[in-house]
Amino acid sequence: MGVSHLISITGAGTGNPDLLTVLAKKRIEQADVILYDALFGEEILELASPNAEKIYVGKLCKDGQDQTNRQNEIHAKFLYWAKQNKKIVRLKIGDPMIYGRGAEEIRFCKQNNLNYEVIPGVTAGIAGASLCEIPLTERGKNRLILFYTAHIENGKFANLESILSVIKTGSPVVIYMGLNTLPILAEVLIENQINTNTPVQILSKVSQPGQKNYETTLGNVHQFLKNNQPETPTLIVVGKYAKKIIA
Amino acid sequence: MGVSHLISITGAGTGNPDLLTVLAKKRIEQADVILYDALFGEEILELASPNAEKIYVGKLCKDGQDQTNRQNEIHAKFLYWAKQNKKIVRLKIGDPMIYGRGAEEIRFCKQNNLNYEVIPGVTAGIAGASLCEIPLTERGKNRLILFYTAHIENGKFANLESILSVIKTGSPVVIYMGLNTLPILAEVLIENQINTNTPVQILSKVSQPGQKNYETTLGNVHQFLKNNQPETPTLIVVGKYAKKIIA
Repeated sequence: MGVSHLISITGAGTGNPDLLTVLAKKRIEQADVILYDALFGEEILELASPNAEKIYVGKLCKDGQDQTNRQNEIHAKFLYWAKQNKKIVRLKIGDPMIYGRGAEEIRFCKQNNLNYEVIPGVTAGIAGASLCEIPLTERGKNRLILFYTAHIENGKFANLESILSVIKTGSPVVIYMGLNTLPILAEVLIENQINTNTPVQILSKVSQPGQKNYETTLGNVHQFLKNNQPETPTLIVVGKYAKKIIA
Repeated sequence: MGVSHLISITGAGTGNPDLLTVLAKKRIEQADVILYDALFGEEILELASPNAEKIYVGKLCKDGQDQTNRQNEIHAKFLYWAKQNKKIVRLKIGDPMIYGRGAEEIRFCKQNNLNYEVIPGVTAGIAGASLCEIPLTERGKNRLILFYTAHIENGKFANLESILSVIKTGSPVVIYMGLNTLPILAEVLIENQINTNTPVQILSKVSQPGQKNYETTLGNVHQFLKNNQPETPTLIVVGKYAKKIIA
């Protein structure tokens, strides 16, 4: 193995270069090789040297690719470039350990004695809420935050009990990758006695040009999504206090 | 009001300048006035101009100060410096909207027609877990994350039902400001049938010189804290899969 290689497993944040961490930016600028997922914008890649190899390793929704194969191919690229002593940036949306398979990549590096580091990033659930001025926590109101990816198993929402428990306190549930299943989730929550007036915020293209914040309620989600097509990526916040701050 | 003032309500991240966002760093460098909370390190303030006014507005644990007065004094400083057309950075630990009273400051700016912006930051719960290689999410294992501040009301933990519900799925609970109450929480969780072997990670001084990751279990928390004094700030992660990644 090349003695001076480094694999930087790096959170790219929400895709806006202003929201990269200082260290992530530095690593991108110095990289020989960048292995990147879908970034929803090219500006971050433009920070890299023109000589850097930029290799897309992301998945696309329903691209039919086997995800285990895809992950193995990424690992093979780690080995290939590490042997050549390269500075490798593995660029992942948000924070590398939040819904991003960072754990698998760290484990692979450990198993193969690769030099690596982990660089945290801002995650869309938090950055999006801050940018859209939706308080995920507020004194005397909401003190919990539940992060969740909508996941249906045998026709039922997994982890429904946890979601109900948090929503009943008034605190928000932040849903990643949940737009397609949102109408069903809204129905299930209402069936379970959650108030139809509970605010639902759909944050589209967080921190990107064209960022948009759609506001509806559990009872109106179905109709709302008939009339509106929020652009991906989206992030959803559901909760009694998940309302834009007003004067 | 000064026409060219700007109040940047800014997440300072975990205190390490490398984990500032690019925009936060820029705003600090350009600031006329910095209103800062406890930062657990001076390096970030050193990025500011030597001519910038640096004003400590944080609270100290048990400093006896009334927190509403403290917040009102911060708002008064917004007005005072905005009238003088200054570039003001309100520097807050982590992300400004996560357990940081960002909502109150945004509302005050709106009510007073102040020019302001919100700059997200990395929050210790997520950055700490990534830096210490504790996967908060992992495919096929944990898909939820619950953020929580330990809060005792009438002798009972608030929101206990939600915590139990998430921990029972194996997913992690990330606890801010919870070290003092951890022994009681551990007892309560065990009384409620949570396995005594459930891992408990105590992350001390995340991203700072001297960062340390203490590992124990629910059943051993009490004894552990008799023998160890983790330095503040600390962050706690409790959950079946909240284990350091190993090869």
